Amino acid sequence: MRIALAQLNYHIGDFENNIAQIKSAIRKAKELPADVVVFSELAVCGYPPRDFLEFDDFISSCHKAILSIAEECRDIAVIVGAPSVNPSDKGKPLYNSAYFLADGKIRSVFHKTLLPNYDVFDEYRYFEPNRLPYAVVEYKKYKFAVTICEDLWNIADDPLYVRNPMDELIQLNPDLVINIAASPFHYDQPAIRKDILVKNAVKYKLPFFYLNHVGGQTELLFDGGSMVIDPQGNVFDEMKYFEEDLQVYNLNDFDYKDKNENRKDAKAQSKIELIHDALVMGICDYFGKMELKTAILGLSGGIDSAVTLVLAAKALGCDNVRAILLPSRFSSEHSKQDAVELADRLNVRHDIIAIDEAFGALEDTLKPYFKDLPFNLAEENMQARARAVILMALSNKFGYILLNTSNKSEAAVGYGTLYGDMCGGISVLGDLYKTQVYELAEYINRKKEIIPQNTITKPPSAELRPGQKDSDSLPEYDVLDRILYGYIELRKGPNELIREGFDPVLVKRVLRLVNTSEYKRYQTPPILRVSPKAFGTGRRMPIVGKYLS
Amino acid sequence: MRIALAQLNYHIGDFENNIAQIKSAIRKAKELPADVVVFSELAVCGYPPRDFLEFDDFISSCHKAILSIAEECRDIAVIVGAPSVNPSDKGKPLYNSAYFLADGKIRSVFHKTLLPNYDVFDEYRYFEPNRLPYAVVEYKKYKFAVTICEDLWNIADDPLYVRNPMDELIQLNPDLVINIAASPFHYDQPAIRKDILVKNAVKYKLPFFYLNHVGGQTELLFDGGSMVIDPQGNVFDEMKYFEEDLQVYNLNDFDYKDKNENRKDAKAQSKIELIHDALVMGICDYFGKMELKTAILGLSGGIDSAVTLVLAAKALGCDNVRAILLPSRFSSEHSKQDAVELADRLNVRHDIIAIDEAFGALEDTLKPYFKDLPFNLAEENMQARARAVILMALSNKFGYILLNTSNKSEAAVGYGTLYGDMCGGISVLGDLYKTQVYELAEYINRKKEIIPQNTITKPPSAELRPGQKDSDSLPEYDVLDRILYGYIELRKGPNELIREGFDPVLVKRVLRLVNTSEYKRYQTPPILRVSPKAFGTGRRMPIVGKYLS
Repeated sequence: MRIALAQLNYHIGDFENNIAQIKSAIRKAKELPADVVVFSELAVCGYPPRDFLEFDDFISSCHKAILSIAEECRDIAVIVGAPSVNPSDKGKPLYNSAYFLADGKIRSVFHKTLLPNYDVFDEYRYFEPNRLPYAVVEYKKYKFAVTICEDLWNIADDPLYVRNPMDELIQLNPDLVINIAASPFHYDQPAIRKDILVKNAVKYKLPFFYLNHVGGQTELLFDGGSMVIDPQGNVFDEMKYFEEDLQVYNLNDFDYKDKNENRKDAKAQSKIELIHDALVMGICDYFGKMELKTAILGLSGGIDSAVTLVLAAKALGCDNVRAILLPSRFSSEHSKQDAVELADRLNVRHDIIAIDEAFGALEDTLKPYFKDLPFNLAEENMQARARAVILMALSNKFGYILLNTSNKSEAAVGYGTLYGDMCGGISVLGDLYKTQVYELAEYINRKKEIIPQNTITKPPSAELRPGQKDSDSLPEYDVLDRILYGYIELRKGPNELIREGFDPVLVKRVLRLVNTSEYKRYQTPPILRVSPKAFGTGRRMPIVGKYLS
Repeated sequence: MRIALAQLNYHIGDFENNIAQIKSAIRKAKELPADVVVFSELAVCGYPPRDFLEFDDFISSCHKAILSIAEECRDIAVIVGAPSVNPSDKGKPLYNSAYFLADGKIRSVFHKTLLPNYDVFDEYRYFEPNRLPYAVVEYKKYKFAVTICEDLWNIADDPLYVRNPMDELIQLNPDLVINIAASPFHYDQPAIRKDILVKNAVKYKLPFFYLNHVGGQTELLFDGGSMVIDPQGNVFDEMKYFEEDLQVYNLNDFDYKDKNENRKDAKAQSKIELIHDALVMGICDYFGKMELKTAILGLSGGIDSAVTLVLAAKALGCDNVRAILLPSRFSSEHSKQDAVELADRLNVRHDIIAIDEAFGALEDTLKPYFKDLPFNLAEENMQARARAVILMALSNKFGYILLNTSNKSEAAVGYGTLYGDMCGGISVLGDLYKTQVYELAEYINRKKEIIPQNTITKPPSAELRPGQKDSDSLPEYDVLDRILYGYIELRKGPNELIREGFDPVLVKRVLRLVNTSEYKRYQTPPILRVSPKAFGTGRRMPIVGKYLS
């Protein structure tokens, strides 16, 4: 029994493209050869299709896709994910299903039982959980247990669901388990996922074939890393991260051995390397799937725009990125130098467009109303917004997409200008705390200095008034980021954080800043997600809420 | 048995305020007198608390609130909603519960079985559905069946859930049914809700006491309209819409009569009247709960900003609203006149701030890059953005909140400038199609002309280039809005719309515009929701999706 895993990059709702990719992989799998080829969860429509699932037209396109793929299934079987219609008049209208296709037909359909509905997941919004008796499908004398993503995840001590599908499936004596998934990346996810799969293999003493999506879908990044676990719980093989891949595995290679000589070492990338690769893929796929080519960004000489520029140049090519320096009367000479130096090193076109004339005209226009009121946040924000207007004008005129360069620390405490530096089509670093942005800069410079050292070592400043430093308004980032991580990623309340030794006044101030900035974050671009708790669809907070604020 | 219904306006996460309101209502109910007083679903924390439910600190505050309220329950019983902890190690950590408090203690706790997870609802994200055997609570010789919102909603022919709690509760011979709810408003909802409750009363032959939230929680508007249905299925009484209310009902008033002489006529407001009142409440509560007082908006002379200004002046008072006319070289004389006339009629301060100097400076700044390229969308957007910078500068300097004046037709097809006219703290009309905005203007003018007739009759124009009209780029609004309603509210696909007689080319063009504008809508302010399908949290679409685009 030779099983091929096809780890592909789908485009949500682009049936023509998705079907073509799947059929091409079926042909390749036949050549390898393989008896069965496996595609991921909801492969035919891409993941997550969100409310497109509420359109009959969309569901009917999914079904047509399955029938069209089935026609290719001669001398090979296919396991592929798609929504299917719940025939009962009770419950939600759809299932999240895995189709087993063989001999040109649909042989079996299996439905997902455990529907994730937390963080970025909304599967109960669309799907009815499986309530039917479980079944296996027999093909070429092997019994396949076909499961879908979360179905294997209820193995922890504190299970999120009351049912565990594998406990029921194991009664049917399957020979192997297939798991088709759409498991989005965050920096801890590859290790967690491997642990879950190993636990399953050890508990059920079966080989597990796990197949994940790869590619970016706006903010959600799928890392691939599909894998095969042998019945002893060893990782037999791990497929590529952040790239498409197609591999075939012979069940006999490990099925009858005690020791596993074929076992490859699992890839062990560092977290920061994973984050780097995820962000580059995220930019690349956002532009590719939006059918866009070129990016623009404001290059300030600071660390955030520098790291964003490096990643964008890597993802899109240096000819497809344009950097604009937008100095004002408050910009320092070193900022301009650092920015120009970076653009030159990367071979990226840069222009210097001073904002003084536009800012001056805005000041003039408002003079009759502002009179002699002191220069304050209003004027600071006006500079950031004048920059945004210029960048967006270039974007509109020449078809560039503006990259947002904000980081997660700023976004958390609202240290940014709405409709100013918070603009952009996609936020590249919005899920990295400032201290992680530095870590990423060091990683980028690991072999040679790409980002000027001065950008890394100088104190961060928005340069919106003379001598301004971030630390004038905010705690030092190493303390701030640890409080933010505790509150945002770990959902610790004020008392827990204070018990850990943080200053009570500071904790309350930071939590208040986070909660009273929801209105700003509501209007910011989608953020490439690399952490277990990113701002955006995975974190839903009331705007008018008054908790801890 | 005298039952008081306390229809209150809570503030999410403001425990101090919510507890004080509840206790004050308990005291009033005692005076009426009442045997039992009922509060709505998740009353102690406000609805929807969203991801605050993931914080142990928040849940512990909810529990403390219940204990504190229980202390007030001497000589009166209380039914009130709050989250409760699932004691099992399996399943989600919380239940959405109704507490029955009496004699200073928690007498019983009932859990919600049917958890809505569609449109704006995400209850499976947080809660485990009730799987325990049902129970009633006996108090002063009456058996109470206590249900929570959606628990009564599975009575349709095509039920969304496999279980119907009332079918099990009825076996326990209750004397009456209490339903505590948090049912957000849309213009069809009052009629739908009444129908559901009447169906339940008729089917189970019991009196139903339904208690809803009232008030705005950012975009979600709760209309109140709590009601009592007699066992024959007559609406015995309906409480106030869009206002707090407290009423007491004697079970004997209708329990033993065949005919119901006490029955009041149910309120029959027109849809447009409901929408008007909902929006006024929504503005009022957004500002009140954000602890803000004053609003600013750009007044163009067009219909959208005119209607927004009228609603804002009504909600906040004419002294708390400031209108800014921001004419450019393309603005018509009649636009200025219409705008000034409206502001004068409403007694709202207005200022005229020409954008020509700022726009000219921006053009100058970009001249070396734009060279002799023709004036196009880039310059049009630049005007809208210059206006936004000026409005936001006034907002930042003086503490006004910018009101967004976009309508749903524009938002749907992307006919608006991101970071320009799409700015604002809250969108007032973003859930009304252009044709509905006209309807609302006519309603406002029903007694006397408030909005100048010329604003209503002239062809809509963004006035961003000479002689521009909306109809240059868009189909006429009466056709456009019907296609949009079919696609957005009714989820009809292109073939269904074409079968209804719409021009195929137009249908495809409109659907493509809607789908390719997701990236814009992602960054817009929260929209006061008045329709069954508003842009925002209730409609979740992929940005990089390629379906029908």
